Amino acid sequence: MQGSEKAERIQELAKRRGLFWPSYEIYGGLSGFVTFGPLGTVLKHKIEEKFREFYTRPLSILEIESSVILPSKIFEASGHVEHFKEPMVECTKCKRKLRVDHLLEEQAGMSDTETEKLNLAELQNEMEKRGVRCAECGGVLGKPKYFMTMFTTTIGPYSDALGYGRPEAAQGIFVEFRRLWEQARERLPFGVVQIGHALRNEISPRQGPIRLREFTIMDLEFFFDPNDPECTQLEKVETETLRLVRAEAKLRGEKEPIEVTVKEALQKGYVKAEWQAYFMALSKRFLVDLGVPDEKQRFMEKLDWEKAHYAAQSFDQEIYLERWGWTEVSGYAYRTDFDLKRHMEFSGVDMRAFKEGRRFIPHVVEPSFGSDRLVYVVLEYAYQAKKDRVLLRLPRELAPIHIGVYPLVGKDGLPEKAWQIRQMLASEGFAAEYDESGSIGRRYARADEVGTPLGITIDYDSLKDDTITIRDRDSWKQVRTHIGQLVDLLHAYFNYKKEFEDLGQLVRD
Amino acid sequence: MQGSEKAERIQELAKRRGLFWPSYEIYGGLSGFVTFGPLGTVLKHKIEEKFREFYTRPLSILEIESSVILPSKIFEASGHVEHFKEPMVECTKCKRKLRVDHLLEEQAGMSDTETEKLNLAELQNEMEKRGVRCAECGGVLGKPKYFMTMFTTTIGPYSDALGYGRPEAAQGIFVEFRRLWEQARERLPFGVVQIGHALRNEISPRQGPIRLREFTIMDLEFFFDPNDPECTQLEKVETETLRLVRAEAKLRGEKEPIEVTVKEALQKGYVKAEWQAYFMALSKRFLVDLGVPDEKQRFMEKLDWEKAHYAAQSFDQEIYLERWGWTEVSGYAYRTDFDLKRHMEFSGVDMRAFKEGRRFIPHVVEPSFGSDRLVYVVLEYAYQAKKDRVLLRLPRELAPIHIGVYPLVGKDGLPEKAWQIRQMLASEGFAAEYDESGSIGRRYARADEVGTPLGITIDYDSLKDDTITIRDRDSWKQVRTHIGQLVDLLHAYFNYKKEFEDLGQLVRD
Repeated sequence: MQGSEKAERIQELAKRRGLFWPSYEIYGGLSGFVTFGPLGTVLKHKIEEKFREFYTRPLSILEIESSVILPSKIFEASGHVEHFKEPMVECTKCKRKLRVDHLLEEQAGMSDTETEKLNLAELQNEMEKRGVRCAECGGVLGKPKYFMTMFTTTIGPYSDALGYGRPEAAQGIFVEFRRLWEQARERLPFGVVQIGHALRNEISPRQGPIRLREFTIMDLEFFFDPNDPECTQLEKVETETLRLVRAEAKLRGEKEPIEVTVKEALQKGYVKAEWQAYFMALSKRFLVDLGVPDEKQRFMEKLDWEKAHYAAQSFDQEIYLERWGWTEVSGYAYRTDFDLKRHMEFSGVDMRAFKEGRRFIPHVVEPSFGSDRLVYVVLEYAYQAKKDRVLLRLPRELAPIHIGVYPLVGKDGLPEKAWQIRQMLASEGFAAEYDESGSIGRRYARADEVGTPLGITIDYDSLKDDTITIRDRDSWKQVRTHIGQLVDLLHAYFNYKKEFEDLGQLVRD
Repeated sequence: MQGSEKAERIQELAKRRGLFWPSYEIYGGLSGFVTFGPLGTVLKHKIEEKFREFYTRPLSILEIESSVILPSKIFEASGHVEHFKEPMVECTKCKRKLRVDHLLEEQAGMSDTETEKLNLAELQNEMEKRGVRCAECGGVLGKPKYFMTMFTTTIGPYSDALGYGRPEAAQGIFVEFRRLWEQARERLPFGVVQIGHALRNEISPRQGPIRLREFTIMDLEFFFDPNDPECTQLEKVETETLRLVRAEAKLRGEKEPIEVTVKEALQKGYVKAEWQAYFMALSKRFLVDLGVPDEKQRFMEKLDWEKAHYAAQSFDQEIYLERWGWTEVSGYAYRTDFDLKRHMEFSGVDMRAFKEGRRFIPHVVEPSFGSDRLVYVVLEYAYQAKKDRVLLRLPRELAPIHIGVYPLVGKDGLPEKAWQIRQMLASEGFAAEYDESGSIGRRYARADEVGTPLGITIDYDSLKDDTITIRDRDSWKQVRTHIGQLVDLLHAYFNYKKEFEDLGQLVRD
């Protein structure tokens, strides 16, 4: 199966089974917007919850929730008004507006590392030299200019009260640093996370669920004393290996990652901040838990001209996707004191921390994820064809539906018995779906393709001896067990304390 | 304590303890925006989770997540572009812009029922007749005009691609009806809920956490066949009493609610749709569970000219707040087929359901809440002064921190023992906070004011016999119990299977 074919099949499945779909289809759609359906919303929330489990709980990181619309002043201070822009060109013939760097990459084979280095004049020069034309109609292109990729609005009835849609949730944290410092009892280090919608007014997004104009960002800002940058959690990750592509290797045109332990990466100075290395190691494990093996992950260091304006050192965590190749799923920016310093300058308010008589601006490292893109990543890595059918081998804790409950036939009291079991499981907190329509094989297939790990079938024997069969999504094996033990067994299974084979007596085909 | 004093104390507490605060204070703030801090975010999420428990689980209601920014077409179809506006007037002297209806209410004692009936000319007439002046500088006011209270933006690089910030999450559900109908397996009735940020560009919001420009909306759209409007859940609520103020009573100037059972309300035609009555009864119980007694709740029916443009019948659930009086916390609109019909007209796409050969547009009832406002409501009803100190008597399942863990003194191995217990509780899923700073009395006080239900103190005896004391937030009583039993006892307590007195041996003062 080709990468693009797999991507299409996943998107077809996603639409058909209500994982996600392009928004506002009845009005012809609008690129860059997707709607998460019932199963997709649960999956997305579970990924976000897993993020909390990995990153926030071990360090008692504080979670906050601030607004998506912010006054312009904040993004002037943060540097976004100046830097958050992309080069755009208009076709003189069809009037379409396109991204210059993407045109150069697609039509002239330039890399993004090359295009990102160029200013407007240089971009125009390259376009002319390489004969780049409109991707839609082949028309001659006009002069490139910058397009600011923040959504703009007006707050309240005064036309000068400019506001922006946030392109990142980080600023909502930085501007509240004084209150958060109080909540952290004025002790460093501490971290603050925000999970919420973010907006990027992309010029012409064309990558379905991968590049969105509205998406959910998970920004974690971790504040520490630059004079005391030691990571207290390092021993938990120091032997973890990271696959790094360093900036200097990229400059030489190398793309193969080197494999180093966290300890080595720090000793050799490949990663500048210990806390940054800690979060990178955590992220590798997070993605492994989401179903992406180590060898399909890498960390790309950004070159000076590729980095965001606020970053002293920056890595992208990339995951290999069959359709889109190596794709960023998270970023690790060492933001130093940049943001707090700028807000201190622009607001006139003291943003310093103090410790033993010393006043200083804390440094910040930031891991940042988009949960929508992770939904796609999880689906791609879970997607598997088996005998003409689709299995979604979701990690069991991510499955939107835990258990299907099926009466073998729709009569003779089997539906009632099955419904009782469904209600019992629901009251125990399981997402249990009752399904009696169609053949039992069709019901299994429906459950398999949305990744439901277990199916319980109620048959005539169930009425006699209170036993049922449990079917495994991945192996299609079945075990028989007593209803009285079901709840305990299922809790153990979903907490990874038991495997499928431990759930009962294997049934011979 | 005066209502306004209590409101100020709650807001002071909210700021100091990180529940919520006005956003962007370092830039002078901006009315209509609040930031939820670490404890507030947990409380808000718990309220949202409780909403799911009450409304969505019993009916297997589908949850989706769609965008905050939508193309203009959708709000043209929905009628918002035409109707979502407020009368505004500019002061000729200080140039401030103010809401005409609020000025008439504040300066001329008119009711909102009266002002909502008036068009622009009539509003101007009333202003002149009653000598209404600028609330800020006393200046003469200009001519009233309408201000559209949706945030406006442009999507992508084309200036004609108008977009709006959604003032409600409902439209994100209606436009996706076809896909959702499929997900509901083409069977009515079914419900879809969305919990997410919404935006209303208020002219001059001045009620702190009560009237926000950005807030979290919880919109539930429940679709049913108008020829088969029977509520299958009615027997679960039919004896529940509702305190209603009917439209016709309001017209006679009456404000006292009548008390009727759900059954009576339907029989007498006070509530038109059975499903609407069902959700109203559920909401009464929901608010009781959040801490608001029955007698502090009422349902106000809206008059024809007060109703939203899409509603055939509409109620507001109001809660009595000491500072702001009767305040809307949720709305119940019987939207009939209005929205689906309009989207069908505007998009040309068939939005009908079918059943036994019949094609028809489903009807919709909608309960709609704002979770931010509920946070304030919960705080006001939980707030209590006791002996010069503050108790936040939060329902135990809403408390952001379940348990405080305190070593009696900060030496002799007590902190280590206490930390072990904290870790054990955390691994069992409890939000347990370790605190060793300050006197034990101060630590209790700190926990009481954020509503932590239980406190565990480790003393010298704990080292000898593995017993600890548990302290109750509300009664300040203490019981002594064995560490080995702690986890089971606490699970039972937080699941309301045990009361405080059941947790151990009462300690005499």
